[in-house]
Amino acid sequence: MMAPAFSATLICLVETDARIGAAALDRLVDSALARSFDRITVDGQLSTSDTLFCLAGGSSDVDVAPSSEDEGRLGAALEALLRALALEVVRDGEGAERVGRVVVRGGPALVEPVARSIADSLLVKTALHGADPNFGRILQAAGQALGRAGHGFGASFPVDLRIEGRPMVTSGVVAELDAAVLADLERAVSGPEVDYEVTLPGVGGEAEVFFSDLGHAYVTLNAEYTT
Amino acid sequence: MMAPAFSATLICLVETDARIGAAALDRLVDSALARSFDRITVDGQLSTSDTLFCLAGGSSDVDVAPSSEDEGRLGAALEALLRALALEVVRDGEGAERVGRVVVRGGPALVEPVARSIADSLLVKTALHGADPNFGRILQAAGQALGRAGHGFGASFPVDLRIEGRPMVTSGVVAELDAAVLADLERAVSGPEVDYEVTLPGVGGEAEVFFSDLGHAYVTLNAEYTT
Repeated sequence: MMAPAFSATLICLVETDARIGAAALDRLVDSALARSFDRITVDGQLSTSDTLFCLAGGSSDVDVAPSSEDEGRLGAALEALLRALALEVVRDGEGAERVGRVVVRGGPALVEPVARSIADSLLVKTALHGADPNFGRILQAAGQALGRAGHGFGASFPVDLRIEGRPMVTSGVVAELDAAVLADLERAVSGPEVDYEVTLPGVGGEAEVFFSDLGHAYVTLNAEYTT
Repeated sequence: MMAPAFSATLICLVETDARIGAAALDRLVDSALARSFDRITVDGQLSTSDTLFCLAGGSSDVDVAPSSEDEGRLGAALEALLRALALEVVRDGEGAERVGRVVVRGGPALVEPVARSIADSLLVKTALHGADPNFGRILQAAGQALGRAGHGFGASFPVDLRIEGRPMVTSGVVAELDAAVLADLERAVSGPEVDYEVTLPGVGGEAEVFFSDLGHAYVTLNAEYTT
């Protein structure tokens, strides 16, 4: 069970020696959280006692003034740190062997549900586990989310999909995948992290989600204990 | 991939020798579908070419008049048949060994998302696979759906949960589960079908979903082939 939403199994403690007020630090933490722990999922099951503490002791004697360059630097450092920690959760997620990263761009209302649908799809997660560059499962998960959101594109679905930077689908048309292309692609998706980029109709929205694969170890871990 | 919504991998052909008009038969089929194929899920992934044909040849010479007793009987028979066929899909679902049936009662807006959230939870599905009467996972999936729908019940969550008819949680209070009760419960959830009943605040709504367990065979089937 791991899909933080910071509404309430994960304790994260960050310390800085910067001198910054509680309200200003809160704003930096909220922003960094939205770009880190809020962007990860292991199995889509909301974890129920996630807490992040960020303590600023001030011993550095560096005053971080509102809207200053120092505040920007502290925010960027906090975000980089929290993203690294959040990714560790995904890598370490209940039997996980591989991390997927999906970025969806397009209409602002569409990108988040599509990214979550792809990241939480059992078919996408098992394909990631099997090092299978299965673009059909990505499109299916995208189409399911779009349909639920009331956006049907009918027979023509003008979507772009790149897997590990290789164009697989362009404006809804599948690339020619000869044996050499497939062999290259299969090597590309057998690494520790696999990148999926989806572009939907519309502009201005972008959503990024990191997710774990689904393998036998997940089943063993979750079917063989009780609580 | 199997979660029909009859928007468009499953062909079902039903024949009857009743004499009934196309429009009347359509209404009976729609009603029976809503209580059968539309209530099942294997892995929550919308299947994309489901089609049901229902043919009425009329050779029985039995005229089925609108709103007649015969129409009621034909509708009931159709629903019973489609439910039996839909259940076969769940039982046969990609490595499935066990069927879960969840019924959620309560406020009309809450029951469907909660039932779907429970049926599609990887933690509930793996517990079903492991014959684990894990009530915490049921409550977590219910709470996740309620939270997303904007219904927070805070620390007090007045829910009832019965597993295979045994009261596990009553008005949010967990039953005393001594060794004898647990042993009985573990026997009850090791059968081919397991029943979960959830009662939420509110009245008037009821949603039923049949779902497959998630075991090693699902991972093997879906991680080891490409398309």
